[in-house]
Order: sequence, then structure tokens, then C-alpha cells
Amino acid sequence: MDEWTKHDLLDLQELSKKEIEKILETAKSFKQVSTRDVKKVPALRGKTVVMLFFEPSTRTRISFELAAKRLSADTINISASTSSLTKGETIVDTAKNIEAMNVNAIIVRHSCAGVPKVLAEALEPSIINAGDGCRAHPTQALLDMFTIKERLGRIEGLKIGIVGDILHSRVARSNIWGLTKLGAEVTLCGPSTLMPVGIEDHGVRVTYDLNEVIENSDVMMMLRIQKERQNNIYLPSLAEYAKHFGINKSKLKKKKSNLLIMHPGPTNRGVEISGEIADGESSIILDQVTNGVAIRMSVLYLLLGTKESLT
Amino acid sequence: MDEWTKHDLLDLQELSKKEIEKILETAKSFKQVSTRDVKKVPALRGKTVVMLFFEPSTRTRISFELAAKRLSADTINISASTSSLTKGETIVDTAKNIEAMNVNAIIVRHSCAGVPKVLAEALEPSIINAGDGCRAHPTQALLDMFTIKERLGRIEGLKIGIVGDILHSRVARSNIWGLTKLGAEVTLCGPSTLMPVGIEDHGVRVTYDLNEVIENSDVMMMLRIQKERQNNIYLPSLAEYAKHFGINKSKLKKKKSNLLIMHPGPTNRGVEISGEIADGESSIILDQVTNGVAIRMSVLYLLLGTKESLT
Amino acid sequence: MDEWTKHDLLDLQELSKKEIEKILETAKSFKQVSTRDVKKVPALRGKTVVMLFFEPSTRTRISFELAAKRLSADTINISASTSSLTKGETIVDTAKNIEAMNVNAIIVRHSCAGVPKVLAEALEPSIINAGDGCRAHPTQALLDMFTIKERLGRIEGLKIGIVGDILHSRVARSNIWGLTKLGAEVTLCGPSTLMPVGIEDHGVRVTYDLNEVIENSDVMMMLRIQKERQNNIYLPSLAEYAKHFGINKSKLKKKKSNLLIMHPGPTNRGVEISGEIADGESSIILDQVTNGVAIRMSVLYLLLGTKESLT
Repeated sequence: MDEWTKHDLLDLQELSKKEIEKILETAKSFKQVSTRDVKKVPALRGKTVVMLFFEPSTRTRISFELAAKRLSADTINISASTSSLTKGETIVDTAKNIEAMNVNAIIVRHSCAGVPKVLAEALEPSIINAGDGCRAHPTQALLDMFTIKERLGRIEGLKIGIVGDILHSRVARSNIWGLTKLGAEVTLCGPSTLMPVGIEDHGVRVTYDLNEVIENSDVMMMLRIQKERQNNIYLPSLAEYAKHFGINKSKLKKKKSNLLIMHPGPTNRGVEISGEIADGESSIILDQVTNGVAIRMSVLYLLLGTKESLT
Repeated sequence: MDEWTKHDLLDLQELSKKEIEKILETAKSFKQVSTRDVKKVPALRGKTVVMLFFEPSTRTRISFELAAKRLSADTINISASTSSLTKGETIVDTAKNIEAMNVNAIIVRHSCAGVPKVLAEALEPSIINAGDGCRAHPTQALLDMFTIKERLGRIEGLKIGIVGDILHSRVARSNIWGLTKLGAEVTLCGPSTLMPVGIEDHGVRVTYDLNEVIENSDVMMMLRIQKERQNNIYLPSLAEYAKHFGINKSKLKKKKSNLLIMHPGPTNRGVEISGEIADGESSIILDQVTNGVAIRMSVLYLLLGTKESLT
Repeated sequence: MDEWTKHDLLDLQELSKKEIEKILETAKSFKQVSTRDVKKVPALRGKTVVMLFFEPSTRTRISFELAAKRLSADTINISASTSSLTKGETIVDTAKNIEAMNVNAIIVRHSCAGVPKVLAEALEPSIINAGDGCRAHPTQALLDMFTIKERLGRIEGLKIGIVGDILHSRVARSNIWGLTKLGAEVTLCGPSTLMPVGIEDHGVRVTYDLNEVIENSDVMMMLRIQKERQNNIYLPSLAEYAKHFGINKSKLKKKKSNLLIMHPGPTNRGVEISGEIADGESSIILDQVTNGVAIRMSVLYLLLGTKESLT
């Protein structure tokens, strides 16, 4: 693949294996930029990147903002609470107004699945999905894949367990699409109430036995239990969840020697993961965060960049 | 006119016809900057522009912020909710503190008419009014005039209808000042409860018959009904308002062939304007948004720029 | 002293006299930058500075943001209300995530004393304390010392009165540490309920007689009464406080001829200081604000800068 042709990043379903690999490959050189004394390249100088966030977010917003700034783009932050939406305008109207100001990319996060797609169909600027409802969070999955590949050299053939609230997790969905496309064997694990019916059709295996996942996986992704979303419908209690699906030192005794532990953050210490494990040797949680900036630089560069050389 | 001498932009009343034309003329070259690959000129590099917004705003704040950034100025955002004002400081004290940090311009929006003028009298930095109460919104009127001139080649002699809640509209007031100064024939139309007494003294005509405006105008500016401000004192209902003063396809059947429809946004679709018209061929609503950035670049450049060449 | 060796700025207790003087000296040249037409030097180009504010703040946040921008650093704002903290993550986790994005400095303000120290121990980026609880606000004390020295040529031997709510004032604490270290004679004055027990052990004198302070001081620092914190436990009323510990024109009749009046802002006019005095000839309150940017540029430069020349 020589040329990048995609105009938006909505989810990983619509990217080919080659395109995913191109993003991961490009991120490598950008990762190096953030370790320099001058963490900046002029690649997107004079471009405008808008962060349009309808859900609160610290790490994802900052990660994109840093990525854009380290590419020398100008950035604009819009959060829902201060936006015109309080004045009754539709999302498409708001976005069309932003488009009319000649911006190059709109990075959007919204609690409703499908909003980025609607915007991509209506607008000319590149739309980047920073999380839509329970549907997709493609840059998270890309940074997860980058981190795995960085540590283990490959994704093909790896056994990867995703554990937790699969039903509500856009992180799980995007990772399932991406990891299976790159040849990993994905096993899902979680309470049956939080396991989507028919998910096996997406080329994954389902188990309700955490020990099995621990014993067989090369990588385990622990998902965040969204405390704010649970109301006894899905779970008897957080303590009950932690007992059956949280990981800690004693449960990991039987793990494979080089099992890696991942988490998209923010972590609920003592619920899905113990502090000891989150801060331990197997954890690559902070690598994920570091690589998030590189992946987002890569995505912004591929979507907005021109042929000018990278310096 | 060779030299720009004004130090602040408070409203259009205090600008001469030549000064308004100078702003519109300068905006032409800046409009082109936003269509470039590198949307940036170094004109205001090292200058500091502060957005001090006491009312929520998306499009006006972003438009100014983009204008400043595309001129290479540094920008600082202050919104009322996070400001010291919650600690009981006066507005002038807050602004004098900002001034003391050697800023070049303060762009201020406030729900009280006259705040920008008070600040301009007390402070050395250039004050730009981004909307004060029901009084003035000069950059909106300037971008409206720019958009009309861009489409129709002139403003002098045009018949322009402004329709809606004239009483509470700073957009209407600033446009009346500007358009009449440039020789347009302005007709106001709206419910009698929302028509300021004696407004004819400002050189405009008043009618309560929307059809007359539709049949005779070259341009119609539809004002936003501020739903949040209406409480049955002025209007029986929004439906009633839409019926008498909103425009839609059937009402526009008798329009002049090249009637242009404008709206300062955000629109209430189905109230003052139907979606079909807002998105239709006659609508130049998004041109207004695009031109807003150019006008604000022009204003910032004329107020803060030096003789250095524009590249 | 040729080399700067400190990695964080937590409070003035841990700085030597030489180090404080180095910061003040370096600030001199940076003060000049803010008066230029192009208020910008490339010293920190490509560095990332994060403002992590858990308490609302206008002036301190803007002052640091301007300082960073005038040094050409990239800046990121995080305020508590929009941060992941609402999702239950710990402060250290949040900060470790920020660190993982390869940032150079985190400027932190928090209502709990000790948070900056905890972060400095856990993290690699430079931590700058922008105010922690009632404990320390080192850049405020530094800008106060800079302002005094600028006006009076020295600090050693000066008589400096600090008046007000000493108990809750991080500004007072940091100034006590800094001013005594530089050889000033510090006198504290305020209601006995707001005077920390045993504060004399820190090398200061305590009086409850405002007139004595007025008659003997070269400089008086009036502290802000935090209205929001008072609830009749410490003070009978604000009027009572103003009568005994506020200053106004008539009380200052007996002052030394060149007494300077300072206030960290925001001022409560009519409580700790009358408007006449705040705006009067003796007041150097706005100089403090101006110098705040220079001091913060100096601190950022010393903590993050390399040997590259300053242009």
C-alpha cells in the first residue's frame, strides 16, 4: 500500500488489514517525536483540528489535543456544556457551522452510537470517532494493537482475552474488529448479563470462566466497570463482580509467564483490577497511554497530511 | 483612507462609512487565507488575544479564536463560570488584571449592554464587542454586510428586510446602523410587541406584513426567536409566531427571483425558518459563518496589526 | 550559582536564598519580553506544559498559560469539573496518565495541602505548585518579592506587614518563608481567631494592632478575606473585620511616606481594602499581576529550559 485513501476514521470495520498496519507503522515514527527535546513536527502547520466532545473526557481529549499540537495544527476545544446545543440546535447544524469555518478535522465523542457516521456523511472535513455510545472507539483499539505489537512483535496468532462489561464497551467492540482482522484469537469473558447475544458470530470465543482466560492468554484486556451505568440490573454488586471477574495477584498465579495486562482507563482499582496488578510488572496500561498520542498523530497525519516530508 | 485610527470596536455607530468599507475590503484577502492549505499568516505573531465571555457561545467564540490563531496570535479563553467573578470581583477589576498581563486585545461578550464601552474607557488593550445585551454585535453586522456584498456586489440601494424579535436583537441593531450607513433601504418586520417604539427614527421602515417583505426584498435576515427569553409576555406561542413571521417554501412563492435568506444562527428550524429554506438555494447562512472568520481576522488585524506586510 | 538543579517548585522552604534570587534575576529579562511587540521567545518550543487545576482560578491559570505560551511551549488545560476524577480515578492515576503522554511540566492547584508534593514524588515531569490548600503558593510569593525589590531595590531589612486571615492563607505562608529568608522583618496582623498558634517560631512578629503595622511598615500585604470560607466561626461579620483590619484613606494618614500596598487578588473592595486605596498611588497590586507572568516564565524556563540562548 503506497497511498492512503480513507477520508474519515469511524471504526475499524471499514479499514482493511493493510490500512490498520499502515496506521500502526506510521505511529512508530511519531512515537519517537514525543521523546525528543522539541516534541513537534511541522506536518500539519496551518491545519485546524476541532475537538467536539459531547461526553466528558480527560485522557482522550488531551491525547488528541497533544497529537494535533505536536503536528503543529491549531486546535479548538468544544465541550457540550458550553456549546450552542443548549440553544436547541441540531448536532448536524452545529457541525456544519464548524465546517463552514474551514476546519480540516472534527474529532467527535458522543453518547449516541452513529453520530460520527452521520457527521461524516454530511460534512467535508475528516471526521474522527473518539467514541460513540457503546459502538466504537477506533483509536483506542489501534493504540491497544500498537502496544501489543510493540511488546510481543506481532498480533497474528496471539491469544487475547477481553474481560468485563462487553455489552456496553465500545473499546471491546473496536478491539474485536481489529484484533480478529489481524489474526488474533479473541476470547471474551464476563457476566452473562453483560455478554451480547450472538457475539460469537464476530469470530470470537466466549467463556464465563476467568481462570481459563488467565491460564491461556498472552494478553488480557480488563474493561472498566462503568459504576455510573450499573444499577443492579446487570450486577448484584461491585464486590460480587470483583470476586468473579476482577484480577489480583492470587488469581494470576497460574498465568502464562509473559501475560500482559491492559486496561483502557480510567481504572477502578479493587474492582476489575487490583492496584498491585495495575502497577505491577505485567501491566502495560501506561504504555497504552503513551502510544495513544502516537496513534492519534498517525491518524491525523494520514487523514490530513500531504506529501510533504516528515522532519 | 490610508490609515486605520480606531483603537476599539464597540459598535458600528462610531465607524464611518469609509471605516466599514475598509474592514470589508481587508476581510477579502483574509477570506482567502482560510482556503489555503496552510491557513495561517504571521501578522499577529506574539500578540495576545483574550476571549472574555460572560455568556455561553460556540460559534462566535470559535470564530474569533480561529481568526486570532490564523493570524498567529496567542489566545486565552476565559468563561464566566470559571472566572474570578464567582469570587465577587468586579468586571473592571477582572479586566484590569488581564490588562496587567500585557494583552493586546480583549474580546468581550456580556449580557449587559455597555460593558464593552466601560472596559474600553478603563483599559489600554483594544476592546472588541462580541455582543453586549440587546445593544450591539458589530462583527455579526460586518460579516452580514460582507456576505451581501460578496453575493450582490453592493449594499447601496438594496432592499433588506429584518424579520423577528427586533426588540431584543443586538444583531438587528448593529445591522440597522451599518446597512443604513452604507445606503441600503432597511425594512423591519415582526410582532408589534417585539418592535421598539420609535425605531423609524433610525432611518428604517416598519411593517407587520411579512408578505410585503418577501415580495420586495433583495435580502431577508431572519432573527432567532430566543425561546429561553419568551414567556408569553411577547408572544402567544411559538406556533403562532411561526405562522405569522416564520418563512417556508409556500410563503416564499412570491419572492423576487434572487432573494437571499440570512440568519445569524443558531436557527430554530420550524419556527423562524423552515429546514427546507435554511438548507435551500436562497440560503447563505453558512456563507455568513465562513465570512465571520474573515471579518474577525480583518478587525483583529486592523486594530492590532502593524505595517508589516501580509504574507 | 551557575547551574539550576531543582526539578520541581513545591514551596519556598526548599529553595536556598541563592535560588530565590536566581528566579527573581531571571524574571527581569522575561519581564521585558512581555512589553515587546512580539511577546514571544522560542525558549520552550516543543515542550508541553499542563495546567491541572482542581480549584477554580482565573488569574493564576491565565498567568501560567501566558507564561508558557510566551516561551513557545504547548499548553493543555485540565479543570477538575471536566476531568476523569468524576469517574473515580485517583489524582496520582490521573497525573500518571498525563505523565505517560510525555509532558514536561504539570502545574497543579488543589484544595488539599500536599498534593503537589505527592505528585512530585510519583512523577517524572516537573511539578509546579500553583496553590495547595492553606499550605503554599510559591509563585505568588516570588512575584511579591520581585515586585517589592523592583520598587524598593532590596528586600533585606525591609519591614513588611501581612494583614488578614493568616490561618487560611497559603500566600502568607509562602511569603513568610521567602521574605524571612531574604532578610525582611515580617509582622503579621489579623484577628486572633485567624492567627496560627506558634507562628512566631517562623521568625515573624505578631500584633493585633493594625495602626502599629501602618506606622512602621515599608510594605503592607493585605490578604483576601475568603468570604466563601467564613461562617461566623472566625469573624463576627465582614463589617466588623473591615473596621478593625481593613485599610482605607483615613487609617493610612499616619503611614510612612513611601508605604506600598499589595494584595494577591481578587480584592474585596470595602472589606480588607477600600477602592480608593486599591486604585491609589501606594497600590502596586497591578504590578504584582504584571510581574506574575515574568516570574512564571522564569520558573518554567529554569525548570524546563536547556542551555540554548535566550533571544
